[in-house]
This record gives sequence, structure tokens and C-alpha cells, in this order.
Amino acid sequence: MATLGDIGMSALINILSAFAFLLAFALLRIQPINDRVYFTKWYIEGRRSSPSSRGGGFVGRFVNLNFRTYLTFLNWMPQALQMSESQIIDHAGLDSAVFLRIYTLGLKIFGPIAIAAILILIPVNASGGTLFFLQRDLVVNDIDKLSISNIHPKSNKFFVHIGLEYLFTFWVCYMLYKEYDRVASMRLSFLASCGRHPAQFTVLVRNVPRDSGRSISDTVDNFFQRNHPDHYLCHQGVYNAKKFAKLVKKRSKLQNWLDYNHLKFERNPEKRPTRKKGFLGLWGERVDSIDYYKQQIKDLDDKLIVEREKVMKDPKSVSRAAFVSFKTRWGAAVCAQTQQSKNPTLWLTYWAPEPRDIYWKNLAIPFVSLSIRRLIISIVMFALVFFYFIPVAFVQSLANLEGLGRAAPFLRPILDRKLVKSFLQGFVPGLALKIFLLLLPSILMVMSKIEGYVSLSVLERKTAAKYYYFMLVNVFLGSIATGTAFQQLNAFLHQSATEIPRNIGVSIPMKATFFITYIMIDGWAGIAGEILRLKPLAFFHLKHMFIVKTERDLEKAMNPKGIDFPETLPSLQLYFLLGIVYMAVTPILLPFILVFFAFAYFVYRHQVINVYNQKYESAAAFWPHVHSRIIASLVVSQLLLMGLLSTKKAANSTPLLVVLPILTLTFHKYCKHRFEPAFRNDPLEESMNKDLEDGATESDAVFKSHLTDAYLHPIFHAIEGVELAEVRVDKN
Amino acid sequence: MATLGDIGMSALINILSAFAFLLAFALLRIQPINDRVYFTKWYIEGRRSSPSSRGGGFVGRFVNLNFRTYLTFLNWMPQALQMSESQIIDHAGLDSAVFLRIYTLGLKIFGPIAIAAILILIPVNASGGTLFFLQRDLVVNDIDKLSISNIHPKSNKFFVHIGLEYLFTFWVCYMLYKEYDRVASMRLSFLASCGRHPAQFTVLVRNVPRDSGRSISDTVDNFFQRNHPDHYLCHQGVYNAKKFAKLVKKRSKLQNWLDYNHLKFERNPEKRPTRKKGFLGLWGERVDSIDYYKQQIKDLDDKLIVEREKVMKDPKSVSRAAFVSFKTRWGAAVCAQTQQSKNPTLWLTYWAPEPRDIYWKNLAIPFVSLSIRRLIISIVMFALVFFYFIPVAFVQSLANLEGLGRAAPFLRPILDRKLVKSFLQGFVPGLALKIFLLLLPSILMVMSKIEGYVSLSVLERKTAAKYYYFMLVNVFLGSIATGTAFQQLNAFLHQSATEIPRNIGVSIPMKATFFITYIMIDGWAGIAGEILRLKPLAFFHLKHMFIVKTERDLEKAMNPKGIDFPETLPSLQLYFLLGIVYMAVTPILLPFILVFFAFAYFVYRHQVINVYNQKYESAAAFWPHVHSRIIASLVVSQLLLMGLLSTKKAANSTPLLVVLPILTLTFHKYCKHRFEPAFRNDPLEESMNKDLEDGATESDAVFKSHLTDAYLHPIFHAIEGVELAEVRVDKN
Repeated sequence: MATLGDIGMSALINILSAFAFLLAFALLRIQPINDRVYFTKWYIEGRRSSPSSRGGGFVGRFVNLNFRTYLTFLNWMPQALQMSESQIIDHAGLDSAVFLRIYTLGLKIFGPIAIAAILILIPVNASGGTLFFLQRDLVVNDIDKLSISNIHPKSNKFFVHIGLEYLFTFWVCYMLYKEYDRVASMRLSFLASCGRHPAQFTVLVRNVPRDSGRSISDTVDNFFQRNHPDHYLCHQGVYNAKKFAKLVKKRSKLQNWLDYNHLKFERNPEKRPTRKKGFLGLWGERVDSIDYYKQQIKDLDDKLIVEREKVMKDPKSVSRAAFVSFKTRWGAAVCAQTQQSKNPTLWLTYWAPEPRDIYWKNLAIPFVSLSIRRLIISIVMFALVFFYFIPVAFVQSLANLEGLGRAAPFLRPILDRKLVKSFLQGFVPGLALKIFLLLLPSILMVMSKIEGYVSLSVLERKTAAKYYYFMLVNVFLGSIATGTAFQQLNAFLHQSATEIPRNIGVSIPMKATFFITYIMIDGWAGIAGEILRLKPLAFFHLKHMFIVKTERDLEKAMNPKGIDFPETLPSLQLYFLLGIVYMAVTPILLPFILVFFAFAYFVYRHQVINVYNQKYESAAAFWPHVHSRIIASLVVSQLLLMGLLSTKKAANSTPLLVVLPILTLTFHKYCKHRFEPAFRNDPLEESMNKDLEDGATESDAVFKSHLTDAYLHPIFHAIEGVELAEVRVDKN
Repeated sequence: MATLGDIGMSALINILSAFAFLLAFALLRIQPINDRVYFTKWYIEGRRSSPSSRGGGFVGRFVNLNFRTYLTFLNWMPQALQMSESQIIDHAGLDSAVFLRIYTLGLKIFGPIAIAAILILIPVNASGGTLFFLQRDLVVNDIDKLSISNIHPKSNKFFVHIGLEYLFTFWVCYMLYKEYDRVASMRLSFLASCGRHPAQFTVLVRNVPRDSGRSISDTVDNFFQRNHPDHYLCHQGVYNAKKFAKLVKKRSKLQNWLDYNHLKFERNPEKRPTRKKGFLGLWGERVDSIDYYKQQIKDLDDKLIVEREKVMKDPKSVSRAAFVSFKTRWGAAVCAQTQQSKNPTLWLTYWAPEPRDIYWKNLAIPFVSLSIRRLIISIVMFALVFFYFIPVAFVQSLANLEGLGRAAPFLRPILDRKLVKSFLQGFVPGLALKIFLLLLPSILMVMSKIEGYVSLSVLERKTAAKYYYFMLVNVFLGSIATGTAFQQLNAFLHQSATEIPRNIGVSIPMKATFFITYIMIDGWAGIAGEILRLKPLAFFHLKHMFIVKTERDLEKAMNPKGIDFPETLPSLQLYFLLGIVYMAVTPILLPFILVFFAFAYFVYRHQVINVYNQKYESAAAFWPHVHSRIIASLVVSQLLLMGLLSTKKAANSTPLLVVLPILTLTFHKYCKHRFEPAFRNDPLEESMNKDLEDGATESDAVFKSHLTDAYLHPIFHAIEGVELAEVRVDKN
């Protein structure tokens, strides 16, 4: 166990490294050459142009020569706070705004708790004196002196801890209730303010029955005209068109070459660019490049049209799913929430995700296979959580030189060199684990995709859930209990229901210092790394040097990404868990978490404003998950405290805690009932209100034609998009 | 442990007592005086009239003098089988028909399993020979020789048991799947064939918000006219009218006296009946009875009308609930399945139960209190299951004479008498437990009512669930493990997840003889007692002698009741559990269960045809519960077999069983997904079909006026009903 001095030293190192990151960021950020990396969002919105166009000479295009700005290089912090919440919603969407609210929620929850806990608990704990008297000359300034470990067994002081656990639970629940209420109403007013939107009128239908005599499209038309006669408008089929997608990709490449040649010609109008006709332009007749690519694109367009006809006519490439649009929001709301057919596995209706949120590939998955896929993935997930170390250990054992030399004798001369040997033995085992952990989110995302969810937002949420389970078992429990996750699982199976919280609870206070260090390294330094964006920075400059030919390439190189929900949400939830578990045990941990929340809030607010570009808008659909994980943390905390106290022989006080989990779960049930429908259904009252508003104001014809196009399969969209781009270039 | 001889003797006794019951039934049944008890259903349907009117002299009215019928007194058995299933549905409703199917399902499941198990398992078990060789001269014919206990530890023969557990599980699942499919389609076609029915057009709305300026009725009207403009028809408020109900009750009594005097006058037309005006007719002026009661009823009717006006106008007596009727089934289906309001705790919509199924008292419960009520009842239920013995033991301890004498010294002279003493000591403790068990279903029903369910069918289902949990813990686990339920709970809390099935599993085979005896006493003899209907018989004759004055009283005295779902379903499910748990362990138990299912099928078929009169029709809404309890039994059986085998050191074979619970639960999930919606929602396709059919055939006006009356609060109905009866009597 570390002393307070050790913790202080560790804190200093982490603060310094975080500060170094911030300094680096502040300096890099004002260099024009990095402008697109640190202000991505503004470029995408078209509200910021390349610094080159703002003048400043050749050097000025790359390095900031305005020395005054170096003096104010830290002004990003106040800037990040200037935007109000409603401005952020307008600028970046509700998802980002609510994501930021999680950090303020953390501050609101743990701020008062930290003050109360430190004022009340630390004096109580410190005066306990078990450890103090036992180990006076050994570790007087031990952090454990401030924790519950310091209290005598059977002491009546445990009533204070139990009382505070009750108080804190009520406080957390109160804040959660307020927050859920606020987020739910923000969601509803966001959706209400959205204006007309194809998703409001559209329902995704899956498992359309195959009717022998008819096409899927006819079946859908017939069914909805019969069962929703007053509201049905039209529908869009879902196609399974891999070959077409390939052609579209090829066309996009050709288009890019065309753009490049156009640009070349613009810059140097005297000389039309030319190329050779043969393979890779290496031989053959020399032709005018612009004409050549235009011809190629034209040929491909003809092919595309033929292929498109083929796809749309071939019944095999039509999936048993469709996007059905209605005349009114009311009609769509009704269809999405009701059971259509006598056979409840046919004609399944869901709210359509917004068009850019759809993960098209999964729409073609036959519905029958979904439940099998989910079963398999949940087994794989279980194995991954508890046995992930097996493949890692296998890779690590490959680094065992003897074995490798035997398996591949031809490598032996190389392996025998000293440098290679030490590299393999010293570095590879750690590297294998690190690579696995880096790959983990992608692996989990692939697993979620196999499960067959049809929208990106759900995919990300499911990945986040998987990542959270992994962290819960392998970081939280793994750090507290000894041995691998599998050994713990085995131990749990052989322990009784009362022993498990006792065995985990008893080692909770001992691990406080470990988690404090974890919060500083993973939290503080990690967040500082986030703002620096080293990886995107490096990639951007590499791409800029080697690949970028046209404006479109430059935009691609910025590679704008949204908040990385699958990674940030689980780690956030882990911090909530740590704070809640330790609030009544070792409250000295709370300030570290508070610093994390405050710092992360700053950083993410800056990133949301300047960098991130959300791919989709789910209107805070992730909130119920955040809420229920915090509730679960409360229950875990209560059970572990019960376990911990039972080892302290506090038999007269422990039973008082039994009521708390029941109350907490009742609260959760109430919240679920009270607020969750707002995240799942669209109430008819709202739909009707908006329908009536529409009726009074707008003309429908334009919107209806827009509606029929909105859920067109993206491969068909693609052509039109490119054609538009072509027109734009020609006009220049 | 009992020997085979003991079991045989017990079987003989039980068969004889069952036979005695049957004989008594066969004789009692053909006596005209009992006719109304054994053919209740036919009287209610009006298809059988009093034997008195069929002539036969004075004695013949009470005793059967036709001796030929005594020779064919067993012909009720073939008679019971004559009706086809569709006839039973017409005659007694779908609930009864599906209830009978549970028994045939039992036969279909356990018939083949019993044959396979006896042919394969008994030779395998018997040849095991552990017990045989160990205890040759002690209990050679022990029933355990035929069970899994007889197999050597570590034997490879356990593969046979595991294989059969797999086979039997697949068989049970296959039969369950077929049955669920059949019942679901029976339900749908029953609902489809129902014809027009107010429940199809009506939705129950709860938690209507109070609007300060408006009445609830106006609020409802406004809301539905706005949000379901094309479909809303009308609504009926729910009133909280206790005083009115009292007056109605009083009026009903007066009406009965009037009928009685009418009858008296009819029989003896010379003399008009008279009575005295004062209290209980004991003093005062002598008046003509018929005129007197007519006047009294008239006075009361005036009061009723005033009170009715008051109730309907007083906003305090209007509950925040309403029955909303729609013009089309489609409109009602949409409203029942969708979320109405932005605030998901307001405007909650449910399918309206059919009018006679409604439990009106609970409609007035404010919705907020429901979740608190449910929490409290679930805690009470937990306490009841695990601590029920405490109040019982308390009552029993009262029978402790010392204590009683001390508590009530004035009783001491009585207590000291020998007869009283032995009665109290020998009889009261057993009686206390028996009375508790007799009262249990009523206690559970009261608990369900407190929980606030609004229909009788749901109340009965919830009571059945509670009774099942009680039996599961106190009969099944209580017989297998030692000690009270609370001691077991305590033991379970201190055992690990792998130890619990092991500790229970190991004593499973040892308890086979106990359960065989249980099946014979509770099952065989209990069912034979059911057909005899001793309690209703006694009550009927007692009432007939002392209370019955008019025809209406006679009908009341028949006290026709439906199938007692809260008691029969749980005990049925317990037999399924026993059969499934023992099928791979001690298959000799299966024939006893088969006899029970076959015999009970006969008896209940007879009762359904001749006696029971269902109060409501839920269209087999209980089926999903039956299905999931059987699935749960499968999982319990698999876990216990794993536990049992792990004590047999069959380490090489036990892991094979781990997959089985996962597969079983997956099957359950699939069934739930595939069939359960048919029991919860009404698909729009069906509603639309029926609406279209209607549109073509019937005129609407009459039905619509019927619709507006169907959900009138019963207290308002009551007057009209009585008035009709009055008219009828006067016409006579």
C-alpha cells in the first residue's frame, strides 16, 4: 500500500504530464498547418476556410508568426465555456450536449458527497485508530488511516457509514431523477423542434412474408393499403447489391481523378493534362486526361444504370425489409407501436432510424437468423470476458524462442541474434496485450455488427455495453480480487451468495490507492491526450503529404469523427462506479474523480465545439443506459458495503443496509416506468400536435417527394451525389 | 424409505378411497334432490328444469325411485367424453377447453417418456447394483433399486441418464411448442369467431390528468377527439359510489321479499299475505305485504335516483379512469397498443377486460399508489412464503395449556377438564395448520386484490402464481431439504451457486417414495373428492332448508363457480415439476402421475360439462404462465440432475449437461417471441379484417347504443336489471 507521499508524487507526475500535453496542444493548435485537425467541425460546417486563403505568406501558411497569439495560447479554456447549452445543441446536436451533461452530473453528484464525506467520514475514520495504534511507526501517513479499515471491529461508528450510505444513495437518486427528467424533456423538445424530418414519417418493416405470386414490393403495398388505408403513403425496398456497390466505388475513384485533372488544368490553363491509355497510365496512346476520364465515367454510368435495373428487378436481391412512409406522423407512430400481423414474427415494425444512422448491410440479414446470432454472440462475449487471456497468452507463448525456433527452423539464424532475442522476449508479451486492448473496441463493434442491429447508434450503444462488462470484470473486479477473471468466476461459483460480497468487499479499501493511481493515469493523462489528438494529427499530415490531390481528398483526410461513445461511455460509467463504491469507504478517492470530471468536461466541451462531427443524431438515446449503470453501481456499492461490514463483525448495524438495495431498485423501476417510454416510443399526442401544425402551414407536395427519396438505398443515392459534384466542378 | 410393498399398500388404500368417492358420487348424482348441485351448468343455461316439474310424486322429487338408473350409474364416464372439443368451447368457453388440454398435454408428455424411461432406465438402474449388493438382506425390494441411486459412482452408465435427459427435454419442448402453437391459434380463431363484442371496441384508460377547469369526462372527450379524431366514439366514466351500492343492496333485499310474497299469493290466491309495519315485522299496524314492499321499493327508487344524480355530478366520486369506446376495432387496437401522452404515466391505455371480468373496486385506486402496493405485497409475499410458520406456530403455542391458563385465568376451570385438555393438545396444533392452508388461497386472493389488478382473470392468475411459489418452496423444496423454508433460505444464502443444486439434487432420489404417496393422496383422492362436491352439496341443502324463498334464491344457492384456477393451476404445475424432475432419476414415479392426469382429465371434463360456470372468459390468457412454469421445471430438473451427478463423481459426463439449460432457455425465449404477442396484443390485420366484414353486413346504430351501455358501472346497471325482473314477475 502506498503512502500519502507516494500518491502525492504520482499526482505530481500525472499533473505535470497532463500539463505538458495541454501546453503542446496550446502551441500546436495555433499553427495554421494544424488548423484542420483542431477546428474540423468548423470546416465541415463551412464556417472556417483554409488559413492559406487568409494570407500571411508562404511560411505563414504553415507556422504561426503572430507572436501575440502565443501569449494568449490558453484562451481555449474560457472559449470552450462560452457557448450555452442550447447553442451547443444547435451546433453539435443533442447527443453531444447530453454527453457533456454526464460530466456535470458527475460533478453535481460527487461534489457535495465529497465535501460531506471528507468533513464527516475522515474525522470518524481517522479517530478510529486501529491502524494508527497498530502501525504507528511503520506507515503513519498511510491512506488507509482515512478509510473504513481504520475503524475497530464491532464499533458503533459503522452507523455513521451506514447513515451516510443512505444519505448518499438518496442524493444520487435525487440527482439522477432530476437529470433523467431534464434529459427526457430536452429530448422531447429537441424532437419537437426538429421540424419535418423523414424519420418522423417512416417505419422500418422487417420479415415481410414472401408471397409466391408477388414481389416483396407489391406485398408491402397491398398489406399497408389494406391495414393503414388512411395513412399509408409509399415505401422503399431494401436491396442487397454488392456488385453495384463495387461499381459505384470505382466510379468515385474515376471522379476523383477527373477532379484532380480539372484542378491541374485550372492552375495551369496553358497546358491540358494528358495521360497514356494503357494499364496504370504507363503505356499506350497519350490522350487528354479530362476527356479520357469523362469518357470512362460515362461508360461506367451506362453500366451502372444497367446494373441498377438488374438489382431492382431481380427478386433475389430484394431483402424482406422495407421503409414504409406515412402521410402523417400519427400514422407512422401508430404503425411503429402496434403489432401488425396475427403471426407476431411477421411484419415487425420499428421506428426507422434517421437515414444517415442506418447500417444498411444488416438490413438484408434474414430475421430468423438474428436470434441465433445473438445467442452465439452472447456466448462468445462471455468467453471473451472470462477467457480473453487465453489467446493473448498463446501469442505471448509464441514469443517463446525455443518454440518458435522449433516451429519455423528457417527463422533460427535470425532468432539467435541477441537484439532480436531480447526484443522478442522483453517486448512482445506486453505488446500482445496492448494490441489486444487497442483492438478490443473494434472486435466488440464487429461482434455487435454480427448481432445484426440496423442502426449505427444502436451498434455503438451495444458495443459500449459490451466494453463496460469487459471493464467491470477485468478492470474493477480484476483489480480487487486476485487471479484471472476465469479464476474469479470459478471461485464465485464455489462461494455462497453472502460470501461473494464479503470476499470482494473486504479488499475494497485496500485497493483505494491503486484506483487513485488508475484515475490519474487513465483519467487525467488520458483526457489530456484526447485534446492533443496526436493520432489524427499524424494521420492528417501523412495523408496531406502523400494522398491528397483534390479538395474532396482534403476533406476526407480530416477524417472527422464523432464522440467515441463505445469507449468513452464505459470508462465514464467506470468512474461513476468507483466514486459510488468508495464514497462511504475511502472518501479521499472522491477529489481525484472530481478533478477528472471537471477536466474532462472542459476538454470534451472544447472538442465538441471545435472538432467532433457526429455521424448521426440519436437524441440522447443512450441516456437510459447511463442511468441504469449508475443505479447498478449503487446496488453494487451497497452489497459490497454490506459484505465489508459483515467482516467487521458489525452485526447490529449491517441488517440496516438490507432495505437500501430494495429501495434503490424500486426507484429504478419507477424511473424506468416514468421516463424510459420517452426514449422508446413517440406519443400520439405529440405526433398529432405536429401534424396539426403542419396542416396549417406548409404545402405537402415537395416534402412528400423528399420523403420518397430519403430512404433510398445509399448505392442509388451515390450516383446522384457524384453527379451534383461534377456539375459544381464544371461550373468553376 | 418405503418398500415396494408399502407403496402398493398405500396405492391400494388410495384407490379404494377414490373408488368409494366415485361410488358415492354415482349414487348421489342420480337423486333428484341433488340435481342442481351436479348439473349446475345446465340449469344456468336453462336447458334443464327442476325434477319436481318432471313429475314422480312427492318422494320422487327427492329420491330416485327409478331403479334401472342405478344399474347404469357409472355412465357419466363415457358421457363426459362424448362432447368434442369445439362443442366444449361453445358450451363452456375457451378457458375451460384449454384447461382440459393441460391434462392431455400431461398425458402426451409423460406417456412416451414413462415408456421410454421404464424400458431403458429401470434395467440400467437395476443392473447397477450398488444398493443391491450393499443391502441385499435389508430392503431388497426397495424402490431405490430402480432409481439412479443404485448406480456406482463414476459409472459410465450416467451417460444414459444424461442422454435421456436430453431426449426428454427435446420431447417436452417439442410437445410444448406444438401445444403453444395450437392454443395460440385456438385463441385467435376463438376471438375471431366471437362476433361483435363491446370489449373489442373498448380501451381502459387510467390516470387521466385532472384539469382544474374541467370535469374528467370533458377531459377524456377532448383528448380523444383531438388525438383519435377518426375513431373515437364515446366513453364511460368510472365512479366511486359506496353509498349508492348500499342502497342498491337494500333494494335487492326488498325486491326478494316482494317476490316471495307474490309467490305466496300465487300458491294461495284466496289470502293476500300481510305483515306488521314495525321493526322486523314484529309489531305495528298490519298491512298488505305486496303493497307494503312495492311502496318501500318505490321510496327507495326515488332515493336511488337522487343519489345517482349526486354521484354522477360530484367530481370527487368520479375516478381518474374511463372506458373509451371506438368506432372500429382498428381504432381500439391502435389506442390500446400505443403511448398516448408525452408523460408516460398519464393516459395509460389497456385493452378493456370484458364487462363481466372487471373488478370494479380496483378501478378507483389512484395509479400512483399501485407501485407502492405492489412493492409492499411482494415483501409480504416473500415473508409469507418463508415465515408463514411463525403465526401458525404462535396459534399452536396458544394451545399450550400452561400459557393459555396464565393468559386467561378465568378459563382455567375449563382447561383442567381432561377431554378439553386432550382436544386442545392433540387436535388444535394440526387444526391451526390445516385452517391456515385452507385459508391460504383466500389470503393470496386478498393480496392480489390489494395489488390493484382490475380484472378477475388477472386476479386469479396472480393468485395462482403466488400459490405456486408457496407450493414450490414449502411443498417441493420443503419436502426435499430439511428444516423450515426459512432455515433453507438461510442455508442457501450460505451455500455457493454450485453447492445448492448439489445439496438438493442428492436427496431427490430419496424422496421419490414420499412424492409417490403425495401424488396418490393429494392427486388421486383429491380429484375423486372434487367430483363429489361435498362442500357445495352440503351448502346447497342447508341453504335450501333455511334461506331459499324464491326462484332467485334457489339460483343463488346453487352458487355456480368456475374452475378454481388459483388452486388447480398451481397443483397441476407442481405435478409437471415432479414428473420432469423425476423422469431421469426415478422413472417409477411417472405412472402415478399418468394415472393422476388421466383421472383428473375425466373428472374435470365431467365437471366442465355439467357443473362449472365460468364467470368470465379470458380466452386462455393463462396459457403463457403454464408454458413458462413447465420450462422452469425443465431447467430445475437439469440443474438438480447436474447437482446429483456431481455427487456421483461423474466428472466426465456432468459437463455435457451444461448446454441443456441454455438451449432450453433459448427455446423459451423463442416461444415467448413467437407466440406470446397473440396473448397480449390484438394485431391490426385481424382488427381490420373484422372491421371490413362488419362494414359489409350489419347496421351500426343498435350496436353502438349497446356499446355505450356495456361498460356502465354495475351499480347503475343494477337498477335496470331489477326493474326488468319486477316487470317479469308482474306479468306472471
